Amino acid sequence: MADTQDTLLLKIKEQGDLVRQLKAAKESSEKIKEEVAKLLALKAQLATEDVAPQKFTLKTPKGTRDYNPQQMTIRNDVLQKIITVFKRHGAECIDTPVFELKDVLTGKYGEDSKLIYDLKDQGGEILSLRYDLTVPLARYLAMSKITNLKRYHIAKVYRRDNPAMTRGRYREFYQCDFDIAGQYDPMVPDAECLKVVTEILNSLDIGQYVLKINHRRLLDGMFEACGVPADKFRTTCSTVDKLDKSPWEEVRTEMINEKGISPEAADKIGQYVCLNGGTELADKLLQDEKLSKSKAAIEGLEGIKLLLEYCELFGIKDKILFDLSLARGLDYYTGVIYEAVLTQPIKIGNEDQTVGSIAGGGRYDNLVGMFDPKNKQVPCVGISIGVERVFSVLEAKLAAGDITVRTTEIDVYVASAQKNFLEERMKICTELWNAGIKTEHSYKKNPKMLNQLQHCEETGIPFAVVLGESELKRGVVKIRNITTRQEDEILRGDLVSELQARIEALKVKEVNGSA
Amino acid sequence: MADTQDTLLLKIKEQGDLVRQLKAAKESSEKIKEEVAKLLALKAQLATEDVAPQKFTLKTPKGTRDYNPQQMTIRNDVLQKIITVFKRHGAECIDTPVFELKDVLTGKYGEDSKLIYDLKDQGGEILSLRYDLTVPLARYLAMSKITNLKRYHIAKVYRRDNPAMTRGRYREFYQCDFDIAGQYDPMVPDAECLKVVTEILNSLDIGQYVLKINHRRLLDGMFEACGVPADKFRTTCSTVDKLDKSPWEEVRTEMINEKGISPEAADKIGQYVCLNGGTELADKLLQDEKLSKSKAAIEGLEGIKLLLEYCELFGIKDKILFDLSLARGLDYYTGVIYEAVLTQPIKIGNEDQTVGSIAGGGRYDNLVGMFDPKNKQVPCVGISIGVERVFSVLEAKLAAGDITVRTTEIDVYVASAQKNFLEERMKICTELWNAGIKTEHSYKKNPKMLNQLQHCEETGIPFAVVLGESELKRGVVKIRNITTRQEDEILRGDLVSELQARIEALKVKEVNGSA
Repeated sequence: MADTQDTLLLKIKEQGDLVRQLKAAKESSEKIKEEVAKLLALKAQLATEDVAPQKFTLKTPKGTRDYNPQQMTIRNDVLQKIITVFKRHGAECIDTPVFELKDVLTGKYGEDSKLIYDLKDQGGEILSLRYDLTVPLARYLAMSKITNLKRYHIAKVYRRDNPAMTRGRYREFYQCDFDIAGQYDPMVPDAECLKVVTEILNSLDIGQYVLKINHRRLLDGMFEACGVPADKFRTTCSTVDKLDKSPWEEVRTEMINEKGISPEAADKIGQYVCLNGGTELADKLLQDEKLSKSKAAIEGLEGIKLLLEYCELFGIKDKILFDLSLARGLDYYTGVIYEAVLTQPIKIGNEDQTVGSIAGGGRYDNLVGMFDPKNKQVPCVGISIGVERVFSVLEAKLAAGDITVRTTEIDVYVASAQKNFLEERMKICTELWNAGIKTEHSYKKNPKMLNQLQHCEETGIPFAVVLGESELKRGVVKIRNITTRQEDEILRGDLVSELQARIEALKVKEVNGSA
Repeated sequence: MADTQDTLLLKIKEQGDLVRQLKAAKESSEKIKEEVAKLLALKAQLATEDVAPQKFTLKTPKGTRDYNPQQMTIRNDVLQKIITVFKRHGAECIDTPVFELKDVLTGKYGEDSKLIYDLKDQGGEILSLRYDLTVPLARYLAMSKITNLKRYHIAKVYRRDNPAMTRGRYREFYQCDFDIAGQYDPMVPDAECLKVVTEILNSLDIGQYVLKINHRRLLDGMFEACGVPADKFRTTCSTVDKLDKSPWEEVRTEMINEKGISPEAADKIGQYVCLNGGTELADKLLQDEKLSKSKAAIEGLEGIKLLLEYCELFGIKDKILFDLSLARGLDYYTGVIYEAVLTQPIKIGNEDQTVGSIAGGGRYDNLVGMFDPKNKQVPCVGISIGVERVFSVLEAKLAAGDITVRTTEIDVYVASAQKNFLEERMKICTELWNAGIKTEHSYKKNPKMLNQLQHCEETGIPFAVVLGESELKRGVVKIRNITTRQEDEILRGDLVSELQARIEALKVKEVNGSA
């Protein structure tokens, strides 16, 4: 165990005293130099260790975590699948800073604004960490005066929420957003967002799902028809949003006691929000005595009908459910809203895990205008994939042994069967690296053969090049297949081409095997 | 132009008054309902616009920027090349939170600690944004009790520095780090870090470079030999570090006037820091009267010699320069230090741009121990690629027209030559998406042919499927090659396979063309 800082300071003081005594006593310069050297060494130690050891608890901040290599492999695989779909639909990629001027975020998130992380005022601008990727997009569009953009943005966002980390709810978490900005014909981009969600969920292969849709104009019209005052539309909407977690009775109580909605209005709302279906439901509601008198409701219902028509053309109508209880929490939605929900619990080991909501989004036509000095609007619609929930499902599967992952892509390990082969290993690694072959070797001069082969087995490296003295003298090396344990002698000069052929053959086999 | 909030509030008040008057006057319910609807509409408008329009300046925080699609394309290409090299050497990927407990960062960065961004105390933990990826790695290793890891980490870090954005210096910027942690034989992982840097710089193809190396033990020994007191080693080192930007005279003055080094000691240092070379220089210095008496200097010089030997085996010795003026600013280095510098200005348009340092790193054997309650050390060595400078060079080349980038990967655009083809376009898009073909179409119901073809040309889409009434009746569609403008009629049922064949052929041509 190394010295603590205090011990070190004490030792330095004592050694300094000793040196001074020696000098005062005019000891031999040899002796003095020796003790001075010790003193210098102690001081150098102090310089590098002046805060060691720590007294504080070693942890990541509340609600955050490190991703280890296995988790990163899962994460990168999931993100790659999502990006593939985004690119298939022609989305461009943008990025924005992790923090924004605080004013940019103010007034965009309703009741949730209290969850925003602020930076300390260190002189200069007042900043906050981004809370989602939608408001930064709107700020970007207004600032860059862009009126058309189909973009994706994958980045971390920050919310000082109560974390529930086992269920994939963190204070720092990824969002994967796909949005279409621009003045287009009704529901054309909106329907494509739904198509994108289905392609992503199919590609992630995490079970059956339903895409719930609703329309903010219909909700407004419904509230109006039920006798809710217009200034209570948004707050009533937030309460309806809780229906995915709470029964109607609780939601009704909150409406009446906390939001000041009359019991009659609440009961009328209750009759609508239990409805869900398809085009036939929209048709029925268009005939509804109360709703048919609301311009907003008609607008919403016509929108839903058109969206369902386009979903039919996209071949995804069987996944879509028009659901009047879907409300979405965020303030800024103005048109269609969506939410994708897994309909079956996921089997992890011997247990079932319920995941629920896995993507959400909607249309927000007024957000960009909030940032434009002339209030110029850019209509937008988008979706956000809740990848943390996907990560946590896959991580649980990994922990349960249901899946395995390889954390490196190394194809060849250069091993030595005897001592003193470090330099030869380095030369061979160089050849392989320069040929683009993913290669590693031991960083020890004389590693044990058993340890080298074990490393290959543990990390899934398919081939080892084994160097031995007798082979090297004969101008050959051995290639070992780690799985079959078969070893073949190869001419030293053929090593690169032989390995390339074997790696290629393995890839073809894997592709065919998984097809 | 939309109403400001004040105007809107005024209108709502007036409309409310009107409704009350009508009710008081017992006007027809028809009339009242009409005016109530107007009132509701105004209130709904207020709900969505209650902060519009903004009064503050629309900007990103000082020293930060958005990345637009072109910049993101450049960034992702560069990062992909770097990741390819990291993976070729078997590095695993990890990630850590963007903020750490403030205590984790305290005392790690010497004078630069004042540049750390702190978060506001909102109750709970005291947090700071990460300043680099090295300290979080050390915290991760200690916390997870990991003693061996070869990892890469690509993420943004934060420094409240004076930004020089045209030269790629930001307050939010990317670092690409590759580090090898573990107790291994001297200079074996250290040499591989240099090999990794050469592979990356070769792959990025941004001009000739030199990899400067030096050793902290040699610097310590040199300072000792020149008569610098041990407690001034680190601060003298920081001053020497300025030699890459300032002439020796200035550095000498700072040493004497600010750091309290004697003029004699400074002059002796001056004689060493002008030296650079290869193995022969290390050999010469081992014979140097003063240095040969310092244990630290000998240790450093022997290390440099061994490192150069391994660089020879890796075939990169011609890129390496042993340079006694290289010092590196950070406190935590304990052994070899590196810095990669471009040796030629980069031609951008008709101008030359000097880039300078593009990668750096070194050995830090004591950092992990600082986090371990028992001060258990995990020796580490690593490099960090200064990608922001690479980005800014490539962005300047883009702006000068020296390079072009495509911001989407769309292969096929589904266009209509006449009106009322939206539904047919959607059906064909669905077929192509489901076959994995990167496809888009216009979100307008009846886009103009010219606009559709222009979009293809502007964004580099190679093929368009052109729908026309007469063709559709005959069961065929046209495929248009955007570059050659040639159009071929294809059976509707052959569309997917025909497009796949053409896209594949184009890829082969591109690969051969660029080979």
